[in-house]
This record gives sequence, structure tokens and C-alpha cells, in this order.
Amino acid sequence: MTEDDLPDTPATTTCEAVAAVAEASRQWAAVTYSGRARVIHAIANALDTAAEDLIATAQEETNLPEGRLVGELKRTTFQLRLFADVVADGTFLDARIDRPDATWPMGAPRPDLRRMLMPIGPVLVFAASNFPFAFSVAGGDTAAALAAGNAVLVKAHSGHPRLSNATAAVVRAAGRAAGAPENLLRVIHETENGVTALQDPRIRAASFTGSIRGGRALFDIANARPEPIPFYGELGSVNPAFVAPTAASRHASEIVDGFLGSITGSRGQLCTKPGLLLVPAESSMLAMLRDADLPNPTPMLNDRIQKGFEADLAALATHSGVSTLLKGANSTDTSPGTTLLHTTLDKVLASPEALITEVFGPAALIVTYSDPAEVPELARTLAGQLTATIIAESDAASDITLAQDLLPILTEKAGRLLWNQWPTGVSVTYAQQHGGPYPATTAPTTTSVGTASITRFLRPVAFQNFPSTFLPDALNDGNPLSIPQHIDG
Amino acid sequence: MTEDDLPDTPATTTCEAVAAVAEASRQWAAVTYSGRARVIHAIANALDTAAEDLIATAQEETNLPEGRLVGELKRTTFQLRLFADVVADGTFLDARIDRPDATWPMGAPRPDLRRMLMPIGPVLVFAASNFPFAFSVAGGDTAAALAAGNAVLVKAHSGHPRLSNATAAVVRAAGRAAGAPENLLRVIHETENGVTALQDPRIRAASFTGSIRGGRALFDIANARPEPIPFYGELGSVNPAFVAPTAASRHASEIVDGFLGSITGSRGQLCTKPGLLLVPAESSMLAMLRDADLPNPTPMLNDRIQKGFEADLAALATHSGVSTLLKGANSTDTSPGTTLLHTTLDKVLASPEALITEVFGPAALIVTYSDPAEVPELARTLAGQLTATIIAESDAASDITLAQDLLPILTEKAGRLLWNQWPTGVSVTYAQQHGGPYPATTAPTTTSVGTASITRFLRPVAFQNFPSTFLPDALNDGNPLSIPQHIDG
Repeated sequence: MTEDDLPDTPATTTCEAVAAVAEASRQWAAVTYSGRARVIHAIANALDTAAEDLIATAQEETNLPEGRLVGELKRTTFQLRLFADVVADGTFLDARIDRPDATWPMGAPRPDLRRMLMPIGPVLVFAASNFPFAFSVAGGDTAAALAAGNAVLVKAHSGHPRLSNATAAVVRAAGRAAGAPENLLRVIHETENGVTALQDPRIRAASFTGSIRGGRALFDIANARPEPIPFYGELGSVNPAFVAPTAASRHASEIVDGFLGSITGSRGQLCTKPGLLLVPAESSMLAMLRDADLPNPTPMLNDRIQKGFEADLAALATHSGVSTLLKGANSTDTSPGTTLLHTTLDKVLASPEALITEVFGPAALIVTYSDPAEVPELARTLAGQLTATIIAESDAASDITLAQDLLPILTEKAGRLLWNQWPTGVSVTYAQQHGGPYPATTAPTTTSVGTASITRFLRPVAFQNFPSTFLPDALNDGNPLSIPQHIDG
Repeated sequence: MTEDDLPDTPATTTCEAVAAVAEASRQWAAVTYSGRARVIHAIANALDTAAEDLIATAQEETNLPEGRLVGELKRTTFQLRLFADVVADGTFLDARIDRPDATWPMGAPRPDLRRMLMPIGPVLVFAASNFPFAFSVAGGDTAAALAAGNAVLVKAHSGHPRLSNATAAVVRAAGRAAGAPENLLRVIHETENGVTALQDPRIRAASFTGSIRGGRALFDIANARPEPIPFYGELGSVNPAFVAPTAASRHASEIVDGFLGSITGSRGQLCTKPGLLLVPAESSMLAMLRDADLPNPTPMLNDRIQKGFEADLAALATHSGVSTLLKGANSTDTSPGTTLLHTTLDKVLASPEALITEVFGPAALIVTYSDPAEVPELARTLAGQLTATIIAESDAASDITLAQDLLPILTEKAGRLLWNQWPTGVSVTYAQQHGGPYPATTAPTTTSVGTASITRFLRPVAFQNFPSTFLPDALNDGNPLSIPQHIDG
């Protein structure tokens, strides 16, 4: 697959694509914030207009059903528009003005200092397979990088190369028509070309959504550069969910339904799928899960993901402490459907690294516990997570105790904590946090979903003692852009 | 040197010190923001009270004059108090509340989502040599980490081990008296122990101020961990300064004086010392610099820094394109004082990597240019910088043109841009930015000076659908802490 397939993008080498994006990035950074917002809105509109063709192509390449793709494209264009509105608002610039202060108590006069966030430079985005729209060519990372004022080079995922080119063509044409630089976005294919681009000194930041192994390899390459750059990798997560005793006894059936919906949605091919469920041994939940009636499985995204699911599931299912609780309809040994495994808390505590592991697909390990007081010990063994979920009754002493014990531990481990909701379905909002300590991400101080994700692609610059005519408008006296300015703190 | 010399800190292994700090970090994170601020104020007061003893010890170990140390300690305690006030204010938490919204246009209802910044966990601080107070045990990184709610393990610099222990004793005693956990701060010595601590999974972030070589080695270790952590290294910078034609002709003498003051202050042992000065070939500045009357040199911080200065200066001075313009008083071949070297713009453009290089100490390379239009070409060859300075007349066409050409380039290269001021003397303020692309730092999206430096040691956590009783106060309805909350964006 090369860019030759895309009339809108000439055949090219990776080096030339990087050069084009670097040039476009300088031009894009100089566009006004309102102009930037206008272009991003135009891109969103064009994607919506092209929906029919794009979705048809996505169906040909990914096995995803039309309804899911329609919803995903809607999420994608909403995300672009939300980020465009954030750009126009100006809060994201974190503009700060310290006026001169001869009496500043540091021991020396304070100069005139003005600081704001500026575009970091050309961004390389490694697209994900599981969201061919929302985490791919025009997905969250691209939206954040564009909003921040950077041009983007996308390394397309091999799972949907034609859709990647088609999406890029729509983005480029809409951008061009709205006045954006010609190469605001470019697409390259093949891992090897992605690595070449990642090592190019003109690339100033990179992002990735995918496996721990792939993401770690790219993270290492980014850090081994003569000039290392920020690498925002969103890798793996088990997303543990803890069901407290009273919740289990009061709402067993509802919890089972919610959980099964969460692990089977999108066939479990979500980074926030809850792969570990802690339930009281004495509750009826285990039996309900064993007897659950699961829908016929739809095909997975592609063969590679299907094979990975089978291998990872087999490794976990054949562990000596694990038994198979439920095989979904139409499951065969060589092609498993939805699968629930079972073990006990003491066995997990004996082998946490082997048993607390991500299986990407519709599977989960159910862990029964006898003593709630031992559950926090499992939480302490967790690696970094995107999410952790507590299912509990806030009026029941047993549940309150467990939640109070778990909360400080889970706060250290996960980027998002949930109470009586399931972690799949990551809303794009101002307060969203999609991140966490390694291996959930390679950058625990950041998020890859929500408006705060824009900050990843900005860097602060301070201007000391500058005459008004040479200052960026965002930092000028009189606030010509009418944006929030933090003056003297 | 071991902690045995410090009665307040028991003899210990690095592992035990990490364990103690990890335990203290959990306790410290649970202290209220007002309590946290109170402890940090108490620490600042105790350091001021102990000033006489601390400064005497610093003079014994560092060759720095009393006046400089008095000012530096004042800066240090001011910094602690400023950060404490930022903690009490609560803005630094970036509290965001998204209320549920069934009509959220993403295509799915928006849940109740609340996000804030939380302590990242135990921080390892590698202290610097050149500021035994302000960038050492109780310096900026420690102040930021404590303000963020983390306990700190300091790897003391070998240049002032007794002062490090004495400072830690004051901090620990004051913290304890004010109700902080026993091991809010611990000190270890020796690079080997620092590396052991950096590899310990309980350490969640690290910071460093020092050389490119040392910082890069530690950065690589932090990234090679099974669970990599953020590593905030502030490494090297040449801090170029560009004198425009009209400024040079109108204010030659004043510019020369300011420049010489900037490169000789603290004997040039500052990370923001301007090591590269571009001046018009036809101006009188070169002659003035050649004839400058420099003060007798004071000793450098320690022998290691003196030897490094001599070696780096010799390497630059013996480059074929470079001549020596001025050797300061009492300079000898084996022990150079303040030294000015000279070359021309075309020679720098022919060998930018060899000639644009940091010499840590009182030296600079003066570069004469004949055509201002060629100056931006030099700017384009620059690696990442902490600062870049423009000396120009904003009413003169020649200077305006040069500044307009330089500004977009320098904005990409440096964290702080200055106009008609010199970069040494880094004020601690809200809008300060002390950072830049590699090799200025290993984390170009952050600052190591100013109140924004606290954010390095925080990570975002979101709470979805949580009952009020389990939410952090900062995120609760009714805003019980009276801090800024961003509601629905």
C-alpha cells in the first residue's frame, strides 16, 4: 500500500512527506486562532459530507458493522468541532502576564514576563486499528495536534489503508479549500516508514495507540534520538472492576448485564474493556455469569487481532489456577467467542503478573473473593491502568469500607475511576482523562482523550521585556483577542 | 560522605530511604492543601532562621561569596513560600467538573466526570552544583514536588555534601514540628545510589539539573525502566544573544557592559549565561570588548567545574576559525579567567556544531556579521535553548527587520525570549519559563522554574459518576474548598 493509491497525495518518500509537513506546520502555526478553528470546522463538515463513502470503505476493510461506524464518525467530527471551539476560546493557551515589580520579594526586581503555550512543531501520529475513524487519520491525536497549531504526519494502520487515504483526501481538500496549508496532514504507510519518520529531527512529538509491545518499541526509538521528543503512547490496560458485597447481593443481575455489555461491545476490542472482575464468592453472580446467554459473535476487526486474541486467551485459560466459566455461542477451540474465565483471589495474589494481563477481545477473568479485606491487596499489585471501577452501594457499611480502602490505591494506579458505571464508552469532554501510569501510557501526566489532550502538543514560551509590537496578541496589553489572561498570578 | 554525618538522618541504605519516602509520600498526599502550605511555610522560616550556619557551611564547600549565598537562600525561601501560596490557592489543581448531559452532541450522553491533578508519587531530585540552595536540597525541584503533594528523595551533589545534610536536617525538623510525615524529605549521596533510586519502582518521577552528558545518562536510565517514569532534566544551553545594527550603533557601550556583567556574574556558572553574542562587524563593540577591563576572577565553584571550564574553553579556542579576543586579568594558560573568543558568521555557519557549544564558566564566543540578512541562518542551526536574546531598537527599520526574521525561528528553539535584557537572573514568578527543546531540557513541555513547575509532579485523575461522599473536596459540588472549578468547560 502506498500513497499512489490516493490521487490527492502524490507518490513520495517519507523524507519528503516530513519536509512537507514541517513546512506546513510553520504556516499553520501562523494562522490566527479563529482561522484555525474555521479550518477544523470545515474538515469536520467535509468528513460528515463524505460519510457514506468513508463508511462503506471502512466496512470493506474492518469487519465493523455500519451502525458502529456511523456512531464513530459522528464522535470523530464532534471531537474536531469541540477542539476547534476550544481553540477559538483561547483558554488552552494558558496566557500569563507578570508585570514588572520592583518590590518582588525574591530579592531582585521582577521583569515583565509573559508566557503562553505555543505549537510544539510537526507531530507524527501512529493510528490505531480498533477505531478506524476516532483514533485514526482524523481521530483524537490528529484533532489535538491540529488544534494546538501543528501539521500532522499520520502513519496509517495496516488494518484500514484505503480508508486512511480516503480520510486524508477529505481532510486535505477541506483544509485547502478553507485556506489551510497544502500539507496540513499527510499519510504514510508501513511500520518501517513510521520508524524513519519518528527518527527524523523535524518531527517534534509523536503519539501512538496500540499494544504494549509496539508502543514500547516506538517509545524507545523516540527516546534514543539524538534529540529525544515527547512520545505519547496509549498502550495496555486490564481495567479492573471491583464489585462490593452489598452491591453484588442487591443488584447481581443488573451488574452481570452491564458487565457483559461492556466486555462484548465492539467485541471487546476497546482499550477500556474491563478484563478483571472481582466478585464476592458467596454472591449469585458467578452462577449468573456461567449461565449467561451471549449473542453470536461478530467477526473481529481483522485476522491479526483475532489471532492475538486467541493466543492471549489460551495463555490465560491454561494457567493452572484458571478454569473456563463460559464459552459464548459458536465458540470453538480454534476460534473462541466471548469467554469468561474464573479464578480466586488467593490464586491471583500468588501469580499477579501471569493472571492480571490484558486479553484484547471479548474475554475477562472473574475473580471470586471471600474476604473483602483482602481485595485491596490485589489492587496494590496492579500496574498502571486507564481505568478502575468500583461497583458499590454508598449506603452500605461493607461497601463503604471496601471503597474507602480501595480508593487511595486505585487513585495511584489509574487515570479514571468509575462508580457504578462501566469504563467502555470514553466520552469526549473537558474533564475526561484517558491515561494512566505505565503501561497504560508512556506519559502519565497527560490524557489522549478530551480537550486537555491538546496540551500534549504545546510547549510554553516566555517573552521577557518585549515591546508590544513584537508580542503575540495573546500576551498583549489590552487583551486584543479577549482570551483569559492570568495577570500577576 | 554518608548520612551518618547527619544525626537527624539515620544510617541507611538507598532502598530503605526510598521505602521511607514512599510511605511519607502517601501520608503527605493526604494532608489538606492548607496544611501542606503551612508546612512549606514552616520549612522556609526554619531555613531563614538557620541562615547563618547554612551559609557558613556553603562557603566552606563551594567558593561562593557570602553575598551571593545570602541572596540565593533568600530566593530559595521566597520560592518555597510562593509555591505554598499557590497550593493554598488551589488553581494548580486544574479542577474540572462536567455535569451529566443527555444531549451531549457526541452521540452518547455525557456522564458526570470530574478531573483534577493529583500527586504523582515519590520524586527523586538530583541536586545541582551551581546553586547549593536554590537548585539543591530545598531548591526549586524539591519545592515543586512538595507543593504538588509528594515526598522527596534528594541525591545530593558531591560539591556540597555537608550543606546538603545540614539543609535536610532543617527541612526535616521543621516539617516534623509542623506536622508533616517524618520522611517528607531524605537525602542520599553518591551517583551510584542515585542510579539505584532512579531504578526503584517506587520512585514515580525524577528531576535533574546539570550537564548534558550526566543528564542524558540518567534520562536513558529512567526510560529503560520496566515502567518508565517522567524525567525532567535541565541540561545545556548556549543562550545566544543577537545585537541588531541600530542598537549596536546607539548603545554599544551599554550593551558591552550588560553582556560582560551577564557572562561574569557567578563566574559564568549559570545555565542561562549568554555564550554566543552576534554583533555587527562594523560596530565599535568588538573593539570595546577587546579592551574591556575585567575584574580579577574569583575561584570557580570547585575543582571539577574549573577543569571542565578549562577543557571546554581550550577546545573552542583552538578551533581553526576562532581567535582569542580577550583574556581577563590573572588569566594563565593553565587557569583561564574570563575569556572572550571571536569568529565570524560565515565560519559558524560552516561548523555550527563545533562552534555553538556551551562552555560552563565566564567565556563567550563573539560572532561578527556583515549582513544582517544572514543572521537568521545561524538561528536556524541552533539546537534547543533555555533562552535567546534580541538586543534591538524597536523604532529602527534595520532592527525591526532582523527581529521579525529571528522571532519565529527563536520561538521554535528557546523557552524564554528576551528583548534588551540579559538572560541571567531567572526570576521566580507565575509566568516564568525555564525550559526548552533538547538539549536545553529532556521535557520541552515543562518548566523547572516558576509556579508552573509544580505541574511536572502532578498527574490527572478523573472520577466518573462518584457519590459526593467519595469525591475529593476539590471536585465536590458546592466547592467546599472555594478553589477555581471549571464547570462544563
